[in-house]
Amino acid sequence: MTASDAHTPASVEANDTDGTPRDIGWHKGYLSGSRPDLRVPVRRVHLTNGRDVTLYDTSGPYTDPNIDTDVRRGLPPLRENWIIGRGDTEEYAGRPLRPEDDGIKHTSPRGGLKNLDAVFPGRPRQPRRGRDGQAVTQLAYARRGEVTPEMEYVALRENVSPEVVREEIAAGRAVLPANVNHPEIEPMIIGKRFLVKVNANIGNSAVTSSIEEEVEKMTWATRWGADTVMDLSTGRNIHTTREWVLRNSPVPIGTVPLYQALEKVDGRAEELSWEIYKDTIIEQAEQGVDYMTVHAGVLLRYVPLTARRKTGIVSRGGSIMAAWCLAHHKESFLYENFEELCDILAAYDVTFSLGDGLRPGSIADANDEAQFAELKTLGELNSIAKRHHVQTMIEGPGHVPMHKIKENIDLQQEICEEAPFYTLGPLTTDIAPAYDHITSGIGAAMIAWWGTAMLCYVTPKEHLGLPDRDDVKTGVITYKIAAHAADLAKGHPGAQEWDDALSDARFEFRWEDQFNLALDPDTARAFHDETLPAEPAKTAHFCSMCGPKFCSMKISQDIRREHGGALDAAVAEAGMAEKSREFAAAGNRVYLPIAD
Amino acid sequence: MTASDAHTPASVEANDTDGTPRDIGWHKGYLSGSRPDLRVPVRRVHLTNGRDVTLYDTSGPYTDPNIDTDVRRGLPPLRENWIIGRGDTEEYAGRPLRPEDDGIKHTSPRGGLKNLDAVFPGRPRQPRRGRDGQAVTQLAYARRGEVTPEMEYVALRENVSPEVVREEIAAGRAVLPANVNHPEIEPMIIGKRFLVKVNANIGNSAVTSSIEEEVEKMTWATRWGADTVMDLSTGRNIHTTREWVLRNSPVPIGTVPLYQALEKVDGRAEELSWEIYKDTIIEQAEQGVDYMTVHAGVLLRYVPLTARRKTGIVSRGGSIMAAWCLAHHKESFLYENFEELCDILAAYDVTFSLGDGLRPGSIADANDEAQFAELKTLGELNSIAKRHHVQTMIEGPGHVPMHKIKENIDLQQEICEEAPFYTLGPLTTDIAPAYDHITSGIGAAMIAWWGTAMLCYVTPKEHLGLPDRDDVKTGVITYKIAAHAADLAKGHPGAQEWDDALSDARFEFRWEDQFNLALDPDTARAFHDETLPAEPAKTAHFCSMCGPKFCSMKISQDIRREHGGALDAAVAEAGMAEKSREFAAAGNRVYLPIAD
Repeated sequence: MTASDAHTPASVEANDTDGTPRDIGWHKGYLSGSRPDLRVPVRRVHLTNGRDVTLYDTSGPYTDPNIDTDVRRGLPPLRENWIIGRGDTEEYAGRPLRPEDDGIKHTSPRGGLKNLDAVFPGRPRQPRRGRDGQAVTQLAYARRGEVTPEMEYVALRENVSPEVVREEIAAGRAVLPANVNHPEIEPMIIGKRFLVKVNANIGNSAVTSSIEEEVEKMTWATRWGADTVMDLSTGRNIHTTREWVLRNSPVPIGTVPLYQALEKVDGRAEELSWEIYKDTIIEQAEQGVDYMTVHAGVLLRYVPLTARRKTGIVSRGGSIMAAWCLAHHKESFLYENFEELCDILAAYDVTFSLGDGLRPGSIADANDEAQFAELKTLGELNSIAKRHHVQTMIEGPGHVPMHKIKENIDLQQEICEEAPFYTLGPLTTDIAPAYDHITSGIGAAMIAWWGTAMLCYVTPKEHLGLPDRDDVKTGVITYKIAAHAADLAKGHPGAQEWDDALSDARFEFRWEDQFNLALDPDTARAFHDETLPAEPAKTAHFCSMCGPKFCSMKISQDIRREHGGALDAAVAEAGMAEKSREFAAAGNRVYLPIAD
Repeated sequence: MTASDAHTPASVEANDTDGTPRDIGWHKGYLSGSRPDLRVPVRRVHLTNGRDVTLYDTSGPYTDPNIDTDVRRGLPPLRENWIIGRGDTEEYAGRPLRPEDDGIKHTSPRGGLKNLDAVFPGRPRQPRRGRDGQAVTQLAYARRGEVTPEMEYVALRENVSPEVVREEIAAGRAVLPANVNHPEIEPMIIGKRFLVKVNANIGNSAVTSSIEEEVEKMTWATRWGADTVMDLSTGRNIHTTREWVLRNSPVPIGTVPLYQALEKVDGRAEELSWEIYKDTIIEQAEQGVDYMTVHAGVLLRYVPLTARRKTGIVSRGGSIMAAWCLAHHKESFLYENFEELCDILAAYDVTFSLGDGLRPGSIADANDEAQFAELKTLGELNSIAKRHHVQTMIEGPGHVPMHKIKENIDLQQEICEEAPFYTLGPLTTDIAPAYDHITSGIGAAMIAWWGTAMLCYVTPKEHLGLPDRDDVKTGVITYKIAAHAADLAKGHPGAQEWDDALSDARFEFRWEDQFNLALDPDTARAFHDETLPAEPAKTAHFCSMCGPKFCSMKISQDIRREHGGALDAAVAEAGMAEKSREFAAAGNRVYLPIAD
């Protein structure tokens, strides 16, 4: 994005008169849009020098003390009036829920189960869809030249003009995932001209996690900066878990519907069918899932291409589809029914995330024939989806050594007409299980710099187990670093202000400001306090690296005081002599900076 | 390095007949050279499939159960005969040690201190230097066409021909830091055609750490893969701490002599002088320091260039020299006496690490005039050092956003005639104190890919406090990841074998092999066991990600079995139909892979 795209609408003012306490170092503020119900949340960090720094905020109403949240009631339906106001959707009875939606067999002794329609008591309602099956997508609106409230919202969030947002969506270079049945979300945009986004995966499995834990993981992930969350549950209570997650999520929710479809056939891939899959898609679309990973590019003829790979097919969805294709010796039902699938997604504004089922699972398999063959098919499918006005992004790898990363984004952008790329890492080496947030954070930063729009996080537990709360946080923080490093490298307008504010605080020994501006204030403060726990150390002009005797950037500050205003050589020279005298006069005390 | 450079000398055989127990998953092995005392340690990982994987090993004799180590005696002087054998050095009385070498004032009430000459009882000896002040450097030997035992040693370690090693050193594109007074080290090489190396900083400060702690940190760092260690102590007992570290270190030790010199003048930079500095250099050279950071590029006229910076001068050495220059309004005594300094270093084979005292301390200051002005001076100094046959590497930043990283290495390589670049990170963003191992690991991987020869680690405590044992480990592991990712991207011969071995183990569900091949086996095993602690889970064909019912790469394995041998289309087609029948016959059970 060039500087000329930067745009601050005149009406953008902090709505800071809401009485939020200012003594915790930051508070929740809002940017006002063109209508009273268009208020974009921001995090305002209060510096001890009296200034504020405004940061993008994904944490939702949970961090606003003026909003009373209750997970059993769900979040307020922020977008409801916008959706209804467009007049192009209708409520309808919806698909009846069935016990198997939650993985409960008809023949189960626990047959007398609770009414599934009432699993989420906070929101008894009918689903909504496009009238007469019409496309009610942000893409369709953008193409018609309409700037929706959602577009204005993200324009405020990104500090660009609403017209830039509309153009990028219309061109298919960005998506704004926002199912008409998920009015709770705070709209966000995914595209290379905007801030790089981060997705966090959650989800229970056959062995672990309760519903409460998953909701907690979701709010925890968004608190640390996750822009979207994917619910990859595969165990029991898939439907109910997802309902709780959706009703309480301020960010778009993604899923891999194939996982639930597989549960419905008790894990037997060969028993999957278009009918079961379609039923699952509608079930999830009615609940409000904002984007769905669809592995429609895994074609029968590509499967043998994986035979000589080191690690075969490592995508769960990809291998399910490969298994189905092999079992039936037929072309994938996702590929064969793709146009019908598009029509369904268009009627709810569910965004496609075209899955890379044949992505490499090891350094050895990166950029191979199977991977790029599938990518070409994803390009085809992207064109079809666009004809149906379905917003579409493309998933990418995976495991890729650094010198092969750029080819991935370049090819994807070319083949998929600049549709947003959404990559998992990539991991740049395979030798560090337990540190794959780092092996992949390296690749993620690079590929985002080169144009990837959203990064799917990887936690330290990747390849080893399911992430717990700490792993989720570590994964999100690592990926926020990668995303922000890419924003800087892309020259995103305003991105560097955050770094500059923190560097200023560091230079001026404003420790509390450093902590409050940090991506993770808690850990930064704790690390500092391990060596210098006393309160005065937080205003001291030194740190534990060099101790009280030497540590300071005072000398630099002195130089700046002397030469900051007029730096031509003559003045500088004069300043030097002066400086020499001053040094002597001040007792020749030298402060030294922190690190070497 | 191209594949044609790869070289396996005929004499390289595992010296595995030493009775090391093989049941711990790996053991210490040795590669044999052309003489009996030339044995290069390696880590041999034993896989459950009967194969071995050989890895580079920095852990020293501590991991060889056949060698009896004792920190009070020090390591065996591996290189002593090689050094003496060359006949170009002589023992001499050496500089008398003084109380202030350990920061003890003459006037201190603790005046009756122990004999400093005997601080390290394990090695009462005289120092050694080049006869008649001649250059006894690996550079001088290489230029004369001599392949020293040290060069053969690193050739075995790097799996290249000794002649490649000699050529790279002779051309100044690589350094082999090996002070004649540090015979204990296992030689290693730093240059862009070799494996990327990692340095770990240790060192006490005025507030923390005992001598034992520092020795322990050094052995801990090398256990996890540190290739060199810098002792940056600034507190009490600097001399004694360094003696203990040197006598027990299997890797080259670096220092910043200016730190100790400053202690000798009680922290008053303006009281520093060439005499005090020179005295300190000789003191440290006699002890065996292998490379020294010298901030000789901080010139008086560059200091004003830092005035308008966001974070001024952040290098401790740089600011000490800037303070001295300002206080005296004179050119740096390091710059003015550089040729004499070269002669001293040449007589001990101490390698220069020309410090970047004006490196940027924030994203805002990256690649600015001050930084590149100093780099040009470092280029000059590099040429002078080379004339004196002193091995030289160049230090680099620092804080640099991704899009400005490549310019750093390209300029450095051009200006410094391809002398090895040795960078601190760089950190790619300033917003994540407590995670600067990650912000910098990203930059480190990239700059190493593009040619940086050694990476100085950054720990999670950077900017906040002094690293403890856990931080040291995290820093080293993060940087080993960055270094290895770069080795892969550079196509270093053999680098990918490690990844491939681990990926094979992953694909074949050989969990124990995955753990043993991991950069950090302990943490990988612990993470796995958090969810599936039982012993059988380590041979199971599933993991906790998908549970016992679905998880496996079996389908990929099936495909391989069918199609791996003959992959042309016809055979593949036939295989498909066969596969379809087989699936049905086997009860249509599908195994699914781990991650999605």
